[in-house]
Amino acid sequence: MQTLNIGLIGTGFMGKAHAIALKAAPTVFNLPAMPVCDLLAEVDDELAARKARELGFARATGDWKALVKDPEVDVVDICAPNFLHKEMALAAIAAGKHVYAEKPLALTAADALEMVEAAEREGVKTLVGFNYIRNSATQLAREIVQSGEIGELIHFRGRHNEDYMTDPAKPLDWHTQRATAGAGALGDVGSHILNMAEYLTGQRISEVFGQLQTVIPRRPLPDGSGGLGEVENDDQAQALLRFDGGLIGNIETSRVATGRKMGLAYTITGTKGAIIFDQERMSELQLYKHEGPEGRRGFSTLLVGPEHPDYASFSAAPGHGLGYNDQKIIEIRDLVEGIVGDKPLYPDFREALRVNLMIDAVERSHAEGAWVGV
Amino acid sequence: MQTLNIGLIGTGFMGKAHAIALKAAPTVFNLPAMPVCDLLAEVDDELAARKARELGFARATGDWKALVKDPEVDVVDICAPNFLHKEMALAAIAAGKHVYAEKPLALTAADALEMVEAAEREGVKTLVGFNYIRNSATQLAREIVQSGEIGELIHFRGRHNEDYMTDPAKPLDWHTQRATAGAGALGDVGSHILNMAEYLTGQRISEVFGQLQTVIPRRPLPDGSGGLGEVENDDQAQALLRFDGGLIGNIETSRVATGRKMGLAYTITGTKGAIIFDQERMSELQLYKHEGPEGRRGFSTLLVGPEHPDYASFSAAPGHGLGYNDQKIIEIRDLVEGIVGDKPLYPDFREALRVNLMIDAVERSHAEGAWVGV
Amino acid sequence: MQTLNIGLIGTGFMGKAHAIALKAAPTVFNLPAMPVCDLLAEVDDELAARKARELGFARATGDWKALVKDPEVDVVDICAPNFLHKEMALAAIAAGKHVYAEKPLALTAADALEMVEAAEREGVKTLVGFNYIRNSATQLAREIVQSGEIGELIHFRGRHNEDYMTDPAKPLDWHTQRATAGAGALGDVGSHILNMAEYLTGQRISEVFGQLQTVIPRRPLPDGSGGLGEVENDDQAQALLRFDGGLIGNIETSRVATGRKMGLAYTITGTKGAIIFDQERMSELQLYKHEGPEGRRGFSTLLVGPEHPDYASFSAAPGHGLGYNDQKIIEIRDLVEGIVGDKPLYPDFREALRVNLMIDAVERSHAEGAWVGV
Amino acid sequence: MQTLNIGLIGTGFMGKAHAIALKAAPTVFNLPAMPVCDLLAEVDDELAARKARELGFARATGDWKALVKDPEVDVVDICAPNFLHKEMALAAIAAGKHVYAEKPLALTAADALEMVEAAEREGVKTLVGFNYIRNSATQLAREIVQSGEIGELIHFRGRHNEDYMTDPAKPLDWHTQRATAGAGALGDVGSHILNMAEYLTGQRISEVFGQLQTVIPRRPLPDGSGGLGEVENDDQAQALLRFDGGLIGNIETSRVATGRKMGLAYTITGTKGAIIFDQERMSELQLYKHEGPEGRRGFSTLLVGPEHPDYASFSAAPGHGLGYNDQKIIEIRDLVEGIVGDKPLYPDFREALRVNLMIDAVERSHAEGAWVGV
Repeated sequence: MQTLNIGLIGTGFMGKAHAIALKAAPTVFNLPAMPVCDLLAEVDDELAARKARELGFARATGDWKALVKDPEVDVVDICAPNFLHKEMALAAIAAGKHVYAEKPLALTAADALEMVEAAEREGVKTLVGFNYIRNSATQLAREIVQSGEIGELIHFRGRHNEDYMTDPAKPLDWHTQRATAGAGALGDVGSHILNMAEYLTGQRISEVFGQLQTVIPRRPLPDGSGGLGEVENDDQAQALLRFDGGLIGNIETSRVATGRKMGLAYTITGTKGAIIFDQERMSELQLYKHEGPEGRRGFSTLLVGPEHPDYASFSAAPGHGLGYNDQKIIEIRDLVEGIVGDKPLYPDFREALRVNLMIDAVERSHAEGAWVGV
Repeated sequence: MQTLNIGLIGTGFMGKAHAIALKAAPTVFNLPAMPVCDLLAEVDDELAARKARELGFARATGDWKALVKDPEVDVVDICAPNFLHKEMALAAIAAGKHVYAEKPLALTAADALEMVEAAEREGVKTLVGFNYIRNSATQLAREIVQSGEIGELIHFRGRHNEDYMTDPAKPLDWHTQRATAGAGALGDVGSHILNMAEYLTGQRISEVFGQLQTVIPRRPLPDGSGGLGEVENDDQAQALLRFDGGLIGNIETSRVATGRKMGLAYTITGTKGAIIFDQERMSELQLYKHEGPEGRRGFSTLLVGPEHPDYASFSAAPGHGLGYNDQKIIEIRDLVEGIVGDKPLYPDFREALRVNLMIDAVERSHAEGAWVGV
Repeated sequence: MQTLNIGLIGTGFMGKAHAIALKAAPTVFNLPAMPVCDLLAEVDDELAARKARELGFARATGDWKALVKDPEVDVVDICAPNFLHKEMALAAIAAGKHVYAEKPLALTAADALEMVEAAEREGVKTLVGFNYIRNSATQLAREIVQSGEIGELIHFRGRHNEDYMTDPAKPLDWHTQRATAGAGALGDVGSHILNMAEYLTGQRISEVFGQLQTVIPRRPLPDGSGGLGEVENDDQAQALLRFDGGLIGNIETSRVATGRKMGLAYTITGTKGAIIFDQERMSELQLYKHEGPEGRRGFSTLLVGPEHPDYASFSAAPGHGLGYNDQKIIEIRDLVEGIVGDKPLYPDFREALRVNLMIDAVERSHAEGAWVGV
Repeated sequence: MQTLNIGLIGTGFMGKAHAIALKAAPTVFNLPAMPVCDLLAEVDDELAARKARELGFARATGDWKALVKDPEVDVVDICAPNFLHKEMALAAIAAGKHVYAEKPLALTAADALEMVEAAEREGVKTLVGFNYIRNSATQLAREIVQSGEIGELIHFRGRHNEDYMTDPAKPLDWHTQRATAGAGALGDVGSHILNMAEYLTGQRISEVFGQLQTVIPRRPLPDGSGGLGEVENDDQAQALLRFDGGLIGNIETSRVATGRKMGLAYTITGTKGAIIFDQERMSELQLYKHEGPEGRRGFSTLLVGPEHPDYASFSAAPGHGLGYNDQKIIEIRDLVEGIVGDKPLYPDFREALRVNLMIDAVERSHAEGAWVGV
């Protein structure tokens, strides 16, 4: 069986999630090639060696530049901090490697565009890790929309709110600085809901009207000196949306949404029905159909099961529940099928560029106080 | 005991709700005066007589103009269609009567202003029936906000979505025409959430950015001819909000939100906690406090009980549940206490004018594509 | 219009609920007779007079024995403590009055039987206030069962748990003593779920296997002396059930179910569907139908609306929510229609006797450790 | 690093779940030894070879008897149908292998006892796959109980209901026959809730009173002949429980609970609080504490997060959600730590025997109509 050697850069929360998924995916799915946890890069040799042992990689290096050029590596998997995505991806592309990168693709649309053009010029394949779209319930939502079951879409409401920066005593970190994060909540979690808005509706967001706010403008310096430094990007953002198919909608995103831990949620309203989803209950979808006797109409709670996308590969019985890491396992399946097969990769760099364009448009709209085209 | 003779105009859904509440309120509460169902007006004498019997009014008339001048009547209670509010209220005010009117106060802010000025000139007392703010759970939400329990407010999200016009075969009616309704969903149900946004946060909405859409632009004529006529106002609307205290937020409203029956809901986020409420589960409030051990933090479901505003007058035991009409009973208590006592009436005509100003601002913003001050 | 003069005995929580409902019912419903709040009895003249003013009764007396014989009174409405039901009802029956009594009918089945026989001998009409069965959602559940929509019934699960005695520092009171309460949680709240089990399923409970427990066997004396006294009845109880139609099931009841405020709930499973209800969300019913595509099956949340039993009399629009007192308003409608019309009264004394028989059977089964027939 | 060679027998739904977990566990956790997917047995060589490829095992055999004796195999992992557990486990034990078996351990308590005694005699280690107890939320529930946070336990309510046999057209299969399944729903899914009742409460079930029912007594023969055959065990069962610590409770289990897909749920009530859990929402726990101001008490929804047992190994951020297979990953961690370390394995064969004893006691109680000791 063909193998696909993976070179992983970065072993934080996301790097570990990738490693788990790489190990499990070939058993969950019948893959056309075997992904191999081959080479791992971290900031120094020692950490790299330890992480390789922990995460089950064959080889380790303290130099990511060596990794991207390593002849054995087929796919460079970038889980390093966001501000490094561009340099790493460009180096990998230059070395002719396929690239699998975490989201957001880049800090700005300009950077993302450069990455897209490089990848397309070199003919390498790319995939960006917007993993929530793989969830069985969200794939089901898309299927329901596409089938016309809820009629023509008339409204999209989305949010991705978390509260990881609610505490004002939490010091400045890479999230809060322009140079390392680009946009704030809008880029970090908002990117998910912007991508998902297009994925779910099958329509493009054509124009946005945005509003951003830095709720806690100064935070303690991370050096423990007791001094304060400036937060350079948004803590919360919201936008009205126009889609190219006529649909309207709105999104909301925050990193100071006190109480929300995994606050990705959407409501899609059509002329004949509606869908409600909340990632905090990721294995269920609420579906309403405007049909049948009036006294029997209500939102049904559908638990994901073998009839729904990709679920049967995880369990033969309904309602057994998928978890966060299962989304990544599906993503690995898509990666492998996209690279060794003919299946288009979604979202590739070009698609991920759209997310950066939308983020930029929301920021520009906020500055200008006017609708801005994407 | 002092009595307060009520003259009710209009006996549809809302008129009946008023009548039920007038009958029950004196038993639920210890009122400073006894409201009396005295005179009822309908479109003709016969209907008026029948409705007076059904709703328990002592006298009936087919002429509302007689009602507003009737010397026995202390308070004119206007439950007629919205487009009649102005003429009726002005006539009642001219006759020196206190006025209790259903929402929205008027079709436009200009009309509302005329009504406010007339009432203030004549020194009559006024109350407008934004009944959802009386609900025990919503009063509790306000109490929690005011007490500082959830810290400084940073985000308000509200919606009032229903689906009473989802069916495209539903003919044109008074809701859909400018002359009889003014704004569409925005005026009819959106007015509730706009008023509530200010009531709950204790802040004024200073600027709005709005977007409106008529989803079903043409509907069957009500004459059954099979012809189609134009819908003249919005089926759905949304707006970003700036409050004068620095808070930001957004609202959404619709009459074609397929599946939503009583879709009034809000999320209020503060620096130390958050509140979530949904009118479809009107007797519970979700409360999150960012305190205590991390592993024990979550939204608590508070069932309304005797510790919460006005509940104890309905039941001595927690969780017994209030209903829609109970909100009106509380409103009647406020009416009576405001008219015979010193308590300020909220929302009076001047406060209700704000709702019209906000509606106008949203419409203007939509037309201009820019933030508009209220 | 015919009038029906009500003589109310007892003005605690339940007495007030009756008064509210008596005032509102004629406006909510088109009744065949007008119930009149005529005479009110309390423990002394002064309290009676004050309560009559507060609750809107025309006359007052400190002597309930005068009330039951008063020639103007048509219906004696007993809201006094449970241990007084028997004496009062027998006196009222002897005076030829119809009797409307709160539940449980009596402290023992023997007492209840005496009351039934007296009422039937004298030919007076009777109604017992098991109000939760009037709730629109529960009436809908019954309608669904009767229509066969969920097939043949195979399982009934019910509970009525509250936590009003959770605090061990709460002193002994009438609930805890055999002479004043009979059974404990089983009689006080369990009586509701036992009655409802038969109401909903349309089957009779033929045999029970019960288990009772006094969780807090000694509580402070109510005299504040600091001494402890014995709790004489159950704090929690549970039973397995056999119905005469072949159905099996179980019930649970408690007054120390920490956290549960209005914990009346049931799940009815049939061969083709199922129903779930929770009184804490009294205006919604969950319905599952085992039909249609497998991937679209789930429990639907039905909000009560005008298509459902009795709702339209309260509101013309769906999802507006009924409250606890609305159940009592429906009960008053049934009382009036039963007394002046031909409609059978349910549950009358004979039906309420069944509840006492079931309670006795559960207690006997507990003592004997064996199935006991009802 | 030490390795632990796994010999897997059976590759249905559960066999695949084991394989996925074996692959992922070493990356999720820092294990003291590396479990190796070494040898796989299926009913014939060809299927075994194909399944070994699919599930990632190094070697394959069509003869499970060869597997249990294979010198390279350290642990025999039994995922074959229940009626084969005994023979396979005894053979594995005789060969000196550690045994990891799916639940229920055996068809009868007598068989289970034979297995326990063999394992203890040979000194091999054992583990039985009651995977739901590994779920982070359920481990948290146990932690809360043990810490005394909800006081002394006073009631346990559990159920495990599913509807996989609801359709009467579903033919007889191994589940329905005594010789292949032993008990019906009670053994298949009821075994989970019986084990969990003891795991969660820390008390032993000392006596049960049970009731069983075969709802669909005859089903189509699996040969397609159109003939009907007898269902030999229970479709649904329920029992009242007495625990050795004084706690009482009840359980319910079904395979014909129309509408329930993963209906494992429990409510644990203590003197100071309560816990509610539903496996259909497996990543959340409802917690009530009877403390603080009365108006702020309610059930809190705790989303599992890094503060809760085992969660941090899967994700660094709260609310990301675990899935069914993650439970098995935790089970593998426990298996490896139990076999190569000092940690006691729970539930081992002796503990699993208790489940068989409880099942037997429920069946006996049903037959005798009396309480039966476990």
